[in-house]
Amino acid sequence: MLSNKTPPTIERSLDITVADSAMNSAPSDESAVFKGIPSRRRKATGLRHDDKCTAILRTAAQLFAANGYEATSLDMIADQLGMHKATLYHYVDNKESILYQCLVKSFGDLDNVMKSMEDRSIPVLQRLRIFVHSLALAQNNDFGRCLVLVGSRPLDMMPGGEIRQFRRRLDVTVRALITEGIADGSIKPCHPGLFSALLFGALNWVPRWYSETGKLDLSEVVDTFMNMLTQGIATPQR
Amino acid sequence: MLSNKTPPTIERSLDITVADSAMNSAPSDESAVFKGIPSRRRKATGLRHDDKCTAILRTAAQLFAANGYEATSLDMIADQLGMHKATLYHYVDNKESILYQCLVKSFGDLDNVMKSMEDRSIPVLQRLRIFVHSLALAQNNDFGRCLVLVGSRPLDMMPGGEIRQFRRRLDVTVRALITEGIADGSIKPCHPGLFSALLFGALNWVPRWYSETGKLDLSEVVDTFMNMLTQGIATPQR
Repeated sequence: MLSNKTPPTIERSLDITVADSAMNSAPSDESAVFKGIPSRRRKATGLRHDDKCTAILRTAAQLFAANGYEATSLDMIADQLGMHKATLYHYVDNKESILYQCLVKSFGDLDNVMKSMEDRSIPVLQRLRIFVHSLALAQNNDFGRCLVLVGSRPLDMMPGGEIRQFRRRLDVTVRALITEGIADGSIKPCHPGLFSALLFGALNWVPRWYSETGKLDLSEVVDTFMNMLTQGIATPQR
Repeated sequence: MLSNKTPPTIERSLDITVADSAMNSAPSDESAVFKGIPSRRRKATGLRHDDKCTAILRTAAQLFAANGYEATSLDMIADQLGMHKATLYHYVDNKESILYQCLVKSFGDLDNVMKSMEDRSIPVLQRLRIFVHSLALAQNNDFGRCLVLVGSRPLDMMPGGEIRQFRRRLDVTVRALITEGIADGSIKPCHPGLFSALLFGALNWVPRWYSETGKLDLSEVVDTFMNMLTQGIATPQR
């Protein structure tokens, strides 16, 4: 179903700068786990170490996506969380390690989705649609937005290839689905790599213009994209 | 025609960081207009002021796209051109004005293309294809890559809305074509704004993974994208 809801404007869809929505997104309430709790009391609140770490990472991811990685300091992260920088160091080593953990968190849930793409009992185009829905959801939460808007470039000097490997697996997953669909006749002969480039280009752009508080639902965006990509926009020639 | 040429990898198509191709692109030979010419002789070479300005802008655009705007200094630009920074100031005011002129140059040629989209003697889908080809060419030259990879965010504090206005016009052009095609029956009823978002997402991503020295021709990329978008990849149900 298509609606008459306000569509994205080009300044949102063409620009590579952080979308207004990202600029204005209010950091999550999770940061409240630290705010207003005197440091001596925090240990007594029963908040688990992991919860605190997640709150720190989420707040950092929001700030990175909104201001850019370079422009975000540890002071700003601590300030947003209402804690001292010294306390922050109790949970994280440095800014690089925060970004790294944010990026790793961004694709944690997609592992199972990628595995499920091998289930041949579901038609290949239906699997592709499930994959695209899951990816869009992951890309438009705090950690996914951080990956898409900041990228791993700030970490290029660091060892370890998990993020690169993850991206490669996403690409391989899409190509494998397209190749399988061509083989079983459900997809026309086409260039799997270029379809993947087209699809990821469109999806990676969404966090730049999409706003949860806007008039378009993310599922509606993804369904419309998938309808256009599978059926095409041209009226069939008779 | 689809080929078996090496397709882009996901690390190129998913990441928002500058693509390897942009990182490695060698600045143009135009910078040679200054190199090796002692400053006293430059005036005698007959090189027009405009040519020199273009050479400066092109070199700056390449450096901005490769290193990012913040990380590129006027010293680096002057150094790349083999000229003194003081001489550079003879042609340009500051870094902001260089970026601004690069961005304006990036869309100079597209004015006529956008105007030609109103020529209803050409079928609408054919016009859309011409538009997309022209845009892809413009986005993948030095100035276009600068616009797509750097964006106008560094200029957000500056007055003037030409760049924003230009982006809006691109979006309006695509929406108008889709709306016209729906009206004349050549395009299925669909959401013009979401088609525009899908198309610009895919196109804006190309400068991140496409390399002129790679195995894929830009026209082939655009034709494949357009075939997928107009005809869809799914085999028609019989």
